[in-house]
Amino acid sequence: MDIKNELAVRAEAAEDVVCRFLPDVEGYQGMVFDAMQYSVTAGGKRIRPILMDETYKLFGGDAEVIEPFMAAIEMIHTYSLVHDDLPAMDNDMLRRGKPTTHAVYGEALGILTGDALLNYAFETALNAYDAPDVDVVNITSAMRILARKAGVFGMIGGQVVDVESEKKQLEMTEEKINFIYNLKTGALIEASMMIGAALAGASEDDITLVESVASKIGMAFQIQDDILDIEGDEETLGKPIGSDEKNEKATYVSFAGMEKSKEEVKRLTDEAIKELNTLPNKNEFLNELLNYLVYRDN
Amino acid sequence: MDIKNELAVRAEAAEDVVCRFLPDVEGYQGMVFDAMQYSVTAGGKRIRPILMDETYKLFGGDAEVIEPFMAAIEMIHTYSLVHDDLPAMDNDMLRRGKPTTHAVYGEALGILTGDALLNYAFETALNAYDAPDVDVVNITSAMRILARKAGVFGMIGGQVVDVESEKKQLEMTEEKINFIYNLKTGALIEASMMIGAALAGASEDDITLVESVASKIGMAFQIQDDILDIEGDEETLGKPIGSDEKNEKATYVSFAGMEKSKEEVKRLTDEAIKELNTLPNKNEFLNELLNYLVYRDN
Repeated sequence: MDIKNELAVRAEAAEDVVCRFLPDVEGYQGMVFDAMQYSVTAGGKRIRPILMDETYKLFGGDAEVIEPFMAAIEMIHTYSLVHDDLPAMDNDMLRRGKPTTHAVYGEALGILTGDALLNYAFETALNAYDAPDVDVVNITSAMRILARKAGVFGMIGGQVVDVESEKKQLEMTEEKINFIYNLKTGALIEASMMIGAALAGASEDDITLVESVASKIGMAFQIQDDILDIEGDEETLGKPIGSDEKNEKATYVSFAGMEKSKEEVKRLTDEAIKELNTLPNKNEFLNELLNYLVYRDN
Repeated sequence: MDIKNELAVRAEAAEDVVCRFLPDVEGYQGMVFDAMQYSVTAGGKRIRPILMDETYKLFGGDAEVIEPFMAAIEMIHTYSLVHDDLPAMDNDMLRRGKPTTHAVYGEALGILTGDALLNYAFETALNAYDAPDVDVVNITSAMRILARKAGVFGMIGGQVVDVESEKKQLEMTEEKINFIYNLKTGALIEASMMIGAALAGASEDDITLVESVASKIGMAFQIQDDILDIEGDEETLGKPIGSDEKNEKATYVSFAGMEKSKEEVKRLTDEAIKELNTLPNKNEFLNELLNYLVYRDN
């Protein structure tokens, strides 16, 4: 399997799903629809909706009810980047080589576009209740996972600690780095896979197993990010390396060292895939994808 | 009935409900819990949760399922103020005589606290699905009203047009003012009353009637706000008057004139209350409250 190629095809399909759910009507507030569209289509690997869809398939799911949730998770990921790029946060004018949302639309609309995407994610996910022949309990379970993992006990919680540690130059510890990675990066990966499982009607035990798998993958993914920021190839990566060192940002690698970090990526990934394969269900593409995600070069 | 006194009692009860749902646990992200708490308890009339509860009672509701939604609507109202006060938006350091959230916690945490409150509003509302003996269809209907009215077709939509018109000094028209008032202020008033009705199992027709009532009240409420900014008493109001004129802000009054504006407040309120009283159900306090809201002096 040519995983890179296969992934590109699915990323395009996932982007189509997200765009289909974005608001596209006339109205005085048209500029925020434009800014939402701009933010969502400004690139990205669409890893979260793809992981969600593949986990859904792993548990036998084959209906359209997954689509509003695929769109919702990508909207939430996108809003987090839009707000992260704001002047008061990372103050980034470029992301993936393109002007960031606030760089194009101004800071006020940057804030409001992020708010709009977060709110619209829930508005979109609620469409799942219209799907025929789906157990309402599974949809509600998916809604709760989405809200929990995106919020203060998930992504926002990690983001708060990351931002405040940096702004206030608080002491960083290895435990705190783990907390930040688990929440800021891990939580949405967990949500993606857990929602796929929940919507397909997986048992509580299986959803917990999937959460554990996703948590390890999220951690490995983020450590690999740190590694690439040191050892990556700028051209393949599509962005300058060395930014963490330049910003004096404490990372997992700066605590554990390069060798242990690489071992940890391997250990976490092997464990995650082994754990996933204790399930009777199989999805070969998902296995390949998990491996690719953590050993990627971009 | 001493409506002011009665309202103060209910406002305190509503605040207790909201606070009961706020996160209060140990964790690295404790500072965002503090900032959420600070933002929510920094004052406010709690009109939205009270309207919700009273409309719920109007339709015979008497269960705890209303509480997570009362908390959610107030969290959404609060986040909108937190983001509205940010330097890139209105740049306000004081609200109701207290330092605004970003003034206390910094701009980055101001943004994240708003995000956290918006996300937590949905996380909180989803608790309603745990309520015993409530039709899931009514809860889902309430969830959808919440998401729709808070989002780009509701409050955020109005906020975007308001902020962009001001920042870019776009031409203001009476139609656009109506659009902004309807969405920015009206939408959450509509959501409050519609959710109360929906959770009590009101028919689609009755929910539509309530939406129309709330829309008129929201409009009258906002026009009264403009009137008070010109003719109000600073001491009773608890804030300086004349801010719209100082900021050269186009308002309903600046288009329609003071006399017509006062007539419009009366017309809208009378119509709203008349419309509400075509229902067989009665709630005397709600009638008094609607009258008070639009004829208030603070």
